[in-house]
Amino acid sequence: MQLPAHGSNPSYLYEALGIEKPKQIIDFSVNTNPLGAPTEINQHWQNWIEAVYDYPDAYCTSLKKAIASNEGVDTSQLLIGNGAAELITLIARYLREKNILIMQPAFSEYETACLHEQCSIDHYITEAPDWQFNKEDIIAKLANKDAVFICQPNNPTGVQYDQEMMDWFIEYCQQSKILLIIDEAFYDFAVQPQTAVSKIRHAPYLLILRSLTKMYNIAGLRLGFLVGQPELIGAIASYQAHWSVNAIALEAGELFLRDGTHANQTRTYIDEQRIHLFSFFNQQGFSYSPSSVNFYLIKDPTRHLLQDLFIFLLKKGFVLRHTVNFPGLDGAWLRAAIKTEKENQQLMGALHEWKQQT
Amino acid sequence: MQLPAHGSNPSYLYEALGIEKPKQIIDFSVNTNPLGAPTEINQHWQNWIEAVYDYPDAYCTSLKKAIASNEGVDTSQLLIGNGAAELITLIARYLREKNILIMQPAFSEYETACLHEQCSIDHYITEAPDWQFNKEDIIAKLANKDAVFICQPNNPTGVQYDQEMMDWFIEYCQQSKILLIIDEAFYDFAVQPQTAVSKIRHAPYLLILRSLTKMYNIAGLRLGFLVGQPELIGAIASYQAHWSVNAIALEAGELFLRDGTHANQTRTYIDEQRIHLFSFFNQQGFSYSPSSVNFYLIKDPTRHLLQDLFIFLLKKGFVLRHTVNFPGLDGAWLRAAIKTEKENQQLMGALHEWKQQT
Repeated sequence: MQLPAHGSNPSYLYEALGIEKPKQIIDFSVNTNPLGAPTEINQHWQNWIEAVYDYPDAYCTSLKKAIASNEGVDTSQLLIGNGAAELITLIARYLREKNILIMQPAFSEYETACLHEQCSIDHYITEAPDWQFNKEDIIAKLANKDAVFICQPNNPTGVQYDQEMMDWFIEYCQQSKILLIIDEAFYDFAVQPQTAVSKIRHAPYLLILRSLTKMYNIAGLRLGFLVGQPELIGAIASYQAHWSVNAIALEAGELFLRDGTHANQTRTYIDEQRIHLFSFFNQQGFSYSPSSVNFYLIKDPTRHLLQDLFIFLLKKGFVLRHTVNFPGLDGAWLRAAIKTEKENQQLMGALHEWKQQT
Repeated sequence: MQLPAHGSNPSYLYEALGIEKPKQIIDFSVNTNPLGAPTEINQHWQNWIEAVYDYPDAYCTSLKKAIASNEGVDTSQLLIGNGAAELITLIARYLREKNILIMQPAFSEYETACLHEQCSIDHYITEAPDWQFNKEDIIAKLANKDAVFICQPNNPTGVQYDQEMMDWFIEYCQQSKILLIIDEAFYDFAVQPQTAVSKIRHAPYLLILRSLTKMYNIAGLRLGFLVGQPELIGAIASYQAHWSVNAIALEAGELFLRDGTHANQTRTYIDEQRIHLFSFFNQQGFSYSPSSVNFYLIKDPTRHLLQDLFIFLLKKGFVLRHTVNFPGLDGAWLRAAIKTEKENQQLMGALHEWKQQT
């Protein structure tokens, strides 16, 4: 069975599995914001049509200023990207033929992009129930490495790595001249967001990746950014196509970064929903990852093959994310986004039904 | 004097030259459609906001079908790109460390992208007044080359290469196993569009690049495509970031490709304007390139340094495109877009004034 490698576009999934797509589906495989985009987009959308007709600012000057101000960095420490996915391919291009460590399970694009650049890939696999890492093992793994990718909070587990361990990890990589790439795509969904951006000034071997498409629900527009020291940012930027970031994404980014209300409301909402869901999973005997963000891993520990639950839910129109291409998970869990209260309840209903019938 | 390498975003140009930007400027440096986007965009724009919230179809299936149907090719022969600029960087990535010939003068991105991939670059320079090439010289230049870039019709001259010569060129490259990349970004502005797309089926060493941002005036959205044999397309696609083409560009592309009216009206309009302009240039003693599309090169043959005319026009708010970074032109000409009748007349007014005072 060949499953699509990504969680978006459920039609491809139903097609690959030969399952008729129900009329109503709820896509739990995509980790965007259940509260949607900030409503301000509706007031501005009509005006943004004007931006379609001109080339976008290839240097993204205005958006860079807004991000620099929010994050307390200099504009020279920023590279804006056509989604975080583009920035990952540019980093991989920069790392061509190097030895790379990936903290797994993780977003599959790190490995895909690095393999296309003839990198050697090694994995450090964190494990249930806490999915943390330890110093001795990681020092051993880093012995011959040029760079390491870590996703904090982790996708797909939703787990935040211990802050002290992360501080040590950053410090260790700087001393060892190993480029550490921290993907913070979901950092702002955590009740207590943790970011390493403030360390950039003193860390020449550190890159921090951010996405605006998840929190602001603009996956269709593509927008992300990279933080690093200017020389490193310049080297990576040299591989970027001219005008790579479209003009509507630039408008949206600037608008949304002006105000933190939406992000705050989202964090509170996600936190409440997660408490409900995890309490239900405890009652019903499902295992889950101790996520602090807007998605989690789930499995039925009484079943060795998860395939049945995946198919059961798909047939009912609940599209979860398979994990067959996540090293360390290998299909043993399903990933689900935290969506609206109603949608989460519908999923709990289906999971209850599953438990009744099995 | 350090001039911006691209023709968009005039503010950077005024800044680099230390000239105060007039309140009213007309940007002749950007070669987009003077008739603007098809008006249908206004009816659809409000609905497209929905596309912002979901990931774009990473495989661009629906747009590929529309293009395949229009062009008489198979969807497997197509790669959709985040603007032609992205596709050029992907081609350059594929050509890493190869020997490249560029037919000059040409769009600067071919060279920029190939240099970032450690390619060796050689130039074949076509010259005024006709800017054509000849077989003997090109055979000599191609002796040790792996690939050659040609822009047809050429940017910045606007000249269409002779059709028989192009047919020979394609054939020669296939026999010699030299990858020929034909950039047809402006092909549909010519009164009689010439394309090599129909040759793809029998040409494994041929790539054709198209842009939708010029004809449909959607430079802010970014959209282009590449035509080639499936194996070659697959190899180039492997370097592309996931979800590289945003959802609004996909919507716009599909809408605009349904109907050829806008392109036909544009061609007629451009042709009329070009006749007016060239007649004026003849009267006033300006030299120009025999363009068949929506831009042309111009110079005052009585002045050795064109810098004065460039600055004279900038101060009056007419932003033309300098040519200092086009090999073979080296600043000796200015490039101007054909814009609306009113704007073209305003430019002619300023050029008339220039001739009066000099």
